[in-house]
Amino acid sequence: MPKANLGITVKKEENFSEWYTQVIQKAELADYSSVSGCIVFKPGSYSIWEFIMASVDKKIKKMGVKNAYFPLLIPERLLKKEQAHVAGFSPEVAWVTEAGNSKLDEKLAIRPSSETIMYESYSKWIRSWRDLPLKLNQWNNVVRWEFKHPIPFLRTREFLWNEGHTAFSTKKEAEKEAMDILNMYNKILREDLALYALLGKKTDKEKFAGAEYTLSAELVLPNGKAIQGPDSHHDGQNFAKAFNIKFLNKNEKEEYVFQNTWAITTRVIGIMIAIHGDNKGLVLPPKLTENKIAIIPIIFKKESEKIIKKAKEIEKKLKRFSPILDLREGYSPGWKFNEYEIKGIPLRIELGPKEIKQKQVTLVRRDTNEKLVIKESKLLKKIPEILNNMQKNLYEKSKKLTLSKIVKVKSLEELKKVIKNKKIALAPFCNAIICEDDIKDQTGGAKIINIPFNQPKNIKDICVYCNKKANHIVYIAKSY
Amino acid sequence: MPKANLGITVKKEENFSEWYTQVIQKAELADYSSVSGCIVFKPGSYSIWEFIMASVDKKIKKMGVKNAYFPLLIPERLLKKEQAHVAGFSPEVAWVTEAGNSKLDEKLAIRPSSETIMYESYSKWIRSWRDLPLKLNQWNNVVRWEFKHPIPFLRTREFLWNEGHTAFSTKKEAEKEAMDILNMYNKILREDLALYALLGKKTDKEKFAGAEYTLSAELVLPNGKAIQGPDSHHDGQNFAKAFNIKFLNKNEKEEYVFQNTWAITTRVIGIMIAIHGDNKGLVLPPKLTENKIAIIPIIFKKESEKIIKKAKEIEKKLKRFSPILDLREGYSPGWKFNEYEIKGIPLRIELGPKEIKQKQVTLVRRDTNEKLVIKESKLLKKIPEILNNMQKNLYEKSKKLTLSKIVKVKSLEELKKVIKNKKIALAPFCNAIICEDDIKDQTGGAKIINIPFNQPKNIKDICVYCNKKANHIVYIAKSY
Repeated sequence: MPKANLGITVKKEENFSEWYTQVIQKAELADYSSVSGCIVFKPGSYSIWEFIMASVDKKIKKMGVKNAYFPLLIPERLLKKEQAHVAGFSPEVAWVTEAGNSKLDEKLAIRPSSETIMYESYSKWIRSWRDLPLKLNQWNNVVRWEFKHPIPFLRTREFLWNEGHTAFSTKKEAEKEAMDILNMYNKILREDLALYALLGKKTDKEKFAGAEYTLSAELVLPNGKAIQGPDSHHDGQNFAKAFNIKFLNKNEKEEYVFQNTWAITTRVIGIMIAIHGDNKGLVLPPKLTENKIAIIPIIFKKESEKIIKKAKEIEKKLKRFSPILDLREGYSPGWKFNEYEIKGIPLRIELGPKEIKQKQVTLVRRDTNEKLVIKESKLLKKIPEILNNMQKNLYEKSKKLTLSKIVKVKSLEELKKVIKNKKIALAPFCNAIICEDDIKDQTGGAKIINIPFNQPKNIKDICVYCNKKANHIVYIAKSY
Repeated sequence: MPKANLGITVKKEENFSEWYTQVIQKAELADYSSVSGCIVFKPGSYSIWEFIMASVDKKIKKMGVKNAYFPLLIPERLLKKEQAHVAGFSPEVAWVTEAGNSKLDEKLAIRPSSETIMYESYSKWIRSWRDLPLKLNQWNNVVRWEFKHPIPFLRTREFLWNEGHTAFSTKKEAEKEAMDILNMYNKILREDLALYALLGKKTDKEKFAGAEYTLSAELVLPNGKAIQGPDSHHDGQNFAKAFNIKFLNKNEKEEYVFQNTWAITTRVIGIMIAIHGDNKGLVLPPKLTENKIAIIPIIFKKESEKIIKKAKEIEKKLKRFSPILDLREGYSPGWKFNEYEIKGIPLRIELGPKEIKQKQVTLVRRDTNEKLVIKESKLLKKIPEILNNMQKNLYEKSKKLTLSKIVKVKSLEELKKVIKNKKIALAPFCNAIICEDDIKDQTGGAKIINIPFNQPKNIKDICVYCNKKANHIVYIAKSY
C-alpha cells in the first residue's frame, strides 16, 4: 500500500496557519527536528534555495562582489564592540561555553550575523584607498534563538542566507550600492519568485541594529500580515568606528570607511509558499522548479503497452523540462494527480487511449487548473509559452493580492479599523518615534512597515496619529 | 606606496611548514581569526571551494543524490545513540549551553557530523521499500574542537564539506555506492585538483567512528607525511539499529536499511596548495582558477598609449579566460610578475614595444616558468593547449612525487628507517590490531594509512611486525 496522501484538509482562506503547516509537510518541503525552532530543509525546499542562491550569486558577482567564508563562532568581546548591534542581538545569541570536556575561557557566540567577526579582519586588511571598495559576501547559516512561536521558513532559530558586507571610501558610493542591492533583490523577487514587494526605507525604530538606515522589500501575506523580505543596510561609519576600519585616502589622510550590509534569507521560501499556494497545495513559479512537468499515463489493460511506449516518447521529447514520468503501479491516476498538485509541479500531462488516438495530450496548468488539449507536434513550442505565462500570471496575482490589501487612511480611527480588518494601511506620518510607539499600542501591535520610495510630491495631510504635519506616507501593518 | 610584497622567504624543501604558512598568507588564501583554530577563507581559497562544490555536486546529482539541509545543533541525547560514533566524536564536540540569558535544558552539540540528527529523520521517513534508496547530501560547516596544533585548511576546528548520507534496502547496493563515490571523489582529485591519490580501505582501528569499513583516498605531502583526503564509509546496519531505521520489504517483512556516509572537505585545498606550490608561491591547476591569465604591459613612456591599447585588445580577445589586465601605476612590471606568481595565476602575458612590433606576446607558464613567444594570431588556439598541458603536467608531477616517496619494506628495521627518512612504507601486514598498535609505538607514531585496493595475488611474505603470514600489503606512514 502506498502512503496515505490525503491532500490539504483545510481551506487557505479559512485557516491560513493550519493550511501553511499542512502544505509544508504534505508537499515535503520541510520537517520539524528535535531541536525546537530548527527545521529540516527537505530536497523540495532546498532545491528552491539552490535556485535563489545561484541567481543572487550570479548578479552580485557581476557587481564585483566576491565570496568568502568567516568563522561560525564569535568571541563575546568582539560581539560587544558595536553598542547598538550587541543590544539588538544579545537576547537571541546561542552561546558555546564548553568544548569536549573543557569549559572555554571565553564564551563564543554562534553568529547571529557576521559584522563583528568580519570587520575585525577588515580593520587588518584595509590600509589604503587601493584596498577599496572591499565587497565580500558569504552564504552560510546563522542562529538567532528567538523565543516567539517558530514557523517553518518564516521564523526559525537557524536559517540560511547570504550576508554581503562592503566597505567604500565615500558615503556616496556606499549609498548607491545599498540601493542597487535592494533593486537586485527585488529583481529576484519579481522575476524568479514571482512576488510583488513594497520597497522603502525603515524608520529609525525598525532599522537594523547598527545601521544608519535600512532599505527593505516588504511582502504581504494572504492573512494580511506584512513580512520583511530581503534588505540592504547602509551603516555609515558606525562599525568602521567601532572596529577601527580606517584607510589612507589619496591625500594620505586617514578616514573611516563607509559600509553596507545586505541579506536575503530562506524566509522568502516561506513567503512564496504562503502567497502562491492554493487549496490543493503548493504552487511554484516554473522558474524555480526542477521538474516542470509530470507525465501520467492513464493505463487501460488492453492498450497499456502502447500508452507506456508513447509516454516514454514524450518524456524523451520534453527532456529539457526534466519531466517526471510516473509509471508506478498500484496508484490510481487520480492519486497521482493529487500528489503532483500538492507538490506544485507546474504542468501535468495526461495521456490515455483517446489522446494517443488523436496524437495529442491533455495538459493541466497547476496555477489555473486550466485543461488544454495540445497536439503532440506542438508541445515543444507550446510548453515554454505556457510556463512563461504561468510565471507572469503568478506575479500579477501576487501584485493584485498585495494592492488589494492596501487601504489609505487619514485618521487613527480609520487606521484601527484597517488593522482590525487584516489589511495594510497607507498613512501620513510625522516621523516622530513617540507616535510610532503609540500607534503600536493603540492598534494592538501594528508597526510602520516602511516608508515607500514613491512619495507624493506635496504632503498636506497631518500625521495619522498626532496633529503635526506629516512628512511621509508610510505602510502600517501587523507583521511577522 | 603599494603594500610590501616580498615573496616567499623560505624554501619549500628546507622549511615546509613555514613555506606553507607564508604561501597561505601571501597568496591571500586564508587569514587567522580571533577564534583559535578557525580561519577566514578569503576569496582566493573560497573560489577554489566553489569550483570543487560545483564539480562534486554535478556528479552526485547524476547519481541520484539530492541536497537537503539539517539543523546545525544536535541534542546531546541524539548524539549519544550510536556508541562507537559518540566515543569517536565527544572529545571534540563544541557545546551550546546557553541562549540569550537562559541556560538550556539540554546541551546542544554543534554538528561534528550529521549522522545522528539526519538518521532521526530517516527513521520517520523510511517506511517501505518504496522509500529506498534515500540519497541525501548536505553542503555545510562542521566543528570539531581538536586540541592538536591547527594548520590552515589541513586541520581547522571549523571546516566546510559535503556529507552524503544514503540508505539502501540491500548491502550489495550500498557497497556498490560506497565504491562508486570513492571513485567519483578520485576523479575530482585527478581531473580537477590534479592530485594523485592512494586508494584503499582503512583498517578497523582507523575507520570512521560508527562505520563497518572506510574507503579512503590518501595523499602524500612533500614533507613525506600522509594525509587523508575524501572518504566513503559503509556503515552496514550500525546506525540503522541505533536509530531504528526499518522498512517493509516487498514480502512485507521488516528489515533494517544499509547505509553509507561520505565526504570531501576544505582540507583538500590545503593538500593541493602543499603539493603543487613552489618557492615562488602558489601553483594552481588551471581548471580551478577563475583568472587564468595576467596581462602585464611593459610600459615605456614614449609608446605607452600604443601599448595600453594593444593590451586592452588582447584582454578583449582572451575574455573567456577572464584575464586580469594590470594597468596599475606606481608598480614595476617585476613587482607585478611577483604578485601573480605568488597568487598562482597560470599564465602571464608580457607585452612591451618589442612584442608589439613583432605582433607577438611573451607568455610565461607558472608551473614550469617556461617562456614562450607566441604570435598574437595564434593565442586563442595556443592558450587552451597550454592550459591543458599544465593541468596534466601538475597531475604527473603529483603522481611522480607520491610514487617517489613509497618504499617497499619487509622488516621492522626497514620500516623504521623508511619512516625516519620521511617516506611511505609499503609493507606486508597480518591485520592484527595488536601489531598495528606496536608499529605505532616502535616508529614514533606511524599509522597504517590504508590497505590499497591493488593487492598482489599471492602474498607469501610474513607480517612486517610479527611472524605470522601477511594477509595484505599496506601503506604505513606518519600522517596529519
